[in-house]
Amino acid sequence: MRATVMYAAGDVRIETVPDAHLIEPTDAVVRVTRACICGSDLWPYNQMEPSESGQRMGHEFIGVVEEIGSEVQSLKIDEVVVAPFLWSDGTCVFCREGLHTSCLHGGRYGYDDVDGGQGEAVRVPQADGTLVQLPLREDEALMPSLLTLSDVMGTGHHAALHAQVAPGKTAAVIGDGAVGLCGVIAAKRLGAEQIIMLGRHDDRIALAKHFGATDIVSERGDAAVERVKELTDGFGAHSVLECVGHTQAVETALAVARPGGAVGRVGLPQHETIPMAHETFFNNITISGGPAPVRAYIEELMPDVLEGRIEPGRVLDHVTNLDGVPEGYRQMNDRESIKVMVTL
Amino acid sequence: MRATVMYAAGDVRIETVPDAHLIEPTDAVVRVTRACICGSDLWPYNQMEPSESGQRMGHEFIGVVEEIGSEVQSLKIDEVVVAPFLWSDGTCVFCREGLHTSCLHGGRYGYDDVDGGQGEAVRVPQADGTLVQLPLREDEALMPSLLTLSDVMGTGHHAALHAQVAPGKTAAVIGDGAVGLCGVIAAKRLGAEQIIMLGRHDDRIALAKHFGATDIVSERGDAAVERVKELTDGFGAHSVLECVGHTQAVETALAVARPGGAVGRVGLPQHETIPMAHETFFNNITISGGPAPVRAYIEELMPDVLEGRIEPGRVLDHVTNLDGVPEGYRQMNDRESIKVMVTL
Repeated sequence: MRATVMYAAGDVRIETVPDAHLIEPTDAVVRVTRACICGSDLWPYNQMEPSESGQRMGHEFIGVVEEIGSEVQSLKIDEVVVAPFLWSDGTCVFCREGLHTSCLHGGRYGYDDVDGGQGEAVRVPQADGTLVQLPLREDEALMPSLLTLSDVMGTGHHAALHAQVAPGKTAAVIGDGAVGLCGVIAAKRLGAEQIIMLGRHDDRIALAKHFGATDIVSERGDAAVERVKELTDGFGAHSVLECVGHTQAVETALAVARPGGAVGRVGLPQHETIPMAHETFFNNITISGGPAPVRAYIEELMPDVLEGRIEPGRVLDHVTNLDGVPEGYRQMNDRESIKVMVTL
Repeated sequence: MRATVMYAAGDVRIETVPDAHLIEPTDAVVRVTRACICGSDLWPYNQMEPSESGQRMGHEFIGVVEEIGSEVQSLKIDEVVVAPFLWSDGTCVFCREGLHTSCLHGGRYGYDDVDGGQGEAVRVPQADGTLVQLPLREDEALMPSLLTLSDVMGTGHHAALHAQVAPGKTAAVIGDGAVGLCGVIAAKRLGAEQIIMLGRHDDRIALAKHFGATDIVSERGDAAVERVKELTDGFGAHSVLECVGHTQAVETALAVARPGGAVGRVGLPQHETIPMAHETFFNNITISGGPAPVRAYIEELMPDVLEGRIEPGRVLDHVTNLDGVPEGYRQMNDRESIKVMVTL
């Protein structure tokens, strides 16, 4: 079969790889119909050391169940399923608590003989715990939004939950990428009254407004902090969604939080420490979040997608096929695209 | 009147100072009957640069209302009151949210013509918002426990709340000082099933056990982390109460938190950054807390003191008078005393 392999920073290839096939009795093989390129794929795209064996890529996909192992009970051949960006057993103590990202028997796509999502098929371990059936056939118009449940929409929701968004509160969203934009959707969905998007790209700002952002702050650093304070009676935002991970973004997130407020961080931290230990202490700021257990959120978010209340699929502003994946990486890296969907 | 003044590290004197007197119409003058030396007073006791004017000390006290300003409505002369360690108006947006430490019109004792608590009397600004009447006369045996509501018991409670202690959970308490010991009380009061005290002093460990600690970890650093993991099925504690503030203590607190767990920090941070940005991110650890809005907690905690369900006054293991305050600092600093009560 054909799949995406990265060999070094900037070197993404579509290659023939061994066909996905069952190994464990708890596996399923899913024929991928739609996948995404993720903002997190851009880290290796910019920094990966050359590798002779290469790295299989992709962790967000929808597909059709082609084969199931002998112990798989909840899935049937030909069902359409969405895959969360990590696989997990659904039964361990952490999965039962809704923290599938800490599953005792889970893992990542593209490692240890597990295929990546940007390819024709994937062996999905712990299939019963991981995959979620979709009540639609693959060709429906809602598929892009359902595809975002594999990562960015669930991640935006995680940021909003950990930022303690609630009705009547003010939310600030740091980052106008796909996750930040989904964070706007999530903040509105959870009842935020004022939603301040910190971002500077016209197309993304337009989408943020469509999703419910009430204010846009295009400044950076101290000027951005000052502007958010002006918009919030001088106090800052109750809830801050940190959707970037760079230190300046983290500092801005912590600085725009109102005393007693919460920062939900979903941007991968780029430094070893969290800044502003004193300021956050004296203001009783809560710092929370991490990788989103999107598997825990799919059932909650899916009805809103199916009934058209949220449209996170709009962040997928470019569509390509498998051969177009390398160009898709370039487009996302050059900010020509918010997020690329791959159809197969 | 006489009061405690610190002039430099290690230089604490009892001196004659101007009598406390009303300045604002919202003030009350309280004749102090009991006060405390605080663990936080030991920071200047070790580090204060010499000062000619000196620094008035003390922020935890019980006393009798002697005078009230013309706008004070809720207090009467001769009432016995407890003072939270900060004064606050009780009416601003933050006070109404229960975050009196961020009061828009509040402040600290010992600064800006406000007396310190380690003296014969205190002018208390914003008296209506700050002071809480006690339903007992001053000579009752419950007074030491009621005195802890001014700081350490409320601070332990704040740590437990922000560590998300709840019935059935495991709590780890970092620090066997007065706040940590009150944290044990708070964790037990909120229903923790297992309470692990990290500490090494026999008298404090004994008191921790009396308060409800189920396990004691006397190791430090990595060995302490390992031991806590052993005691918690390898996972760590759901709730960690960080009651020290030193970087090693913070690192231990973050490292013993279970994935998805929460660290409630009340120890004053000794460094500019919070360590372990990645580990806490990948484990979805929540970092919360700060200075405790003890004013918000007095009504909730007082019935438990009055009805004997909690005995936080036991952390006050040494009693002295005003002249004994300098020796009290030395005793606490040399760990001969957990916490010193001053009776006047």
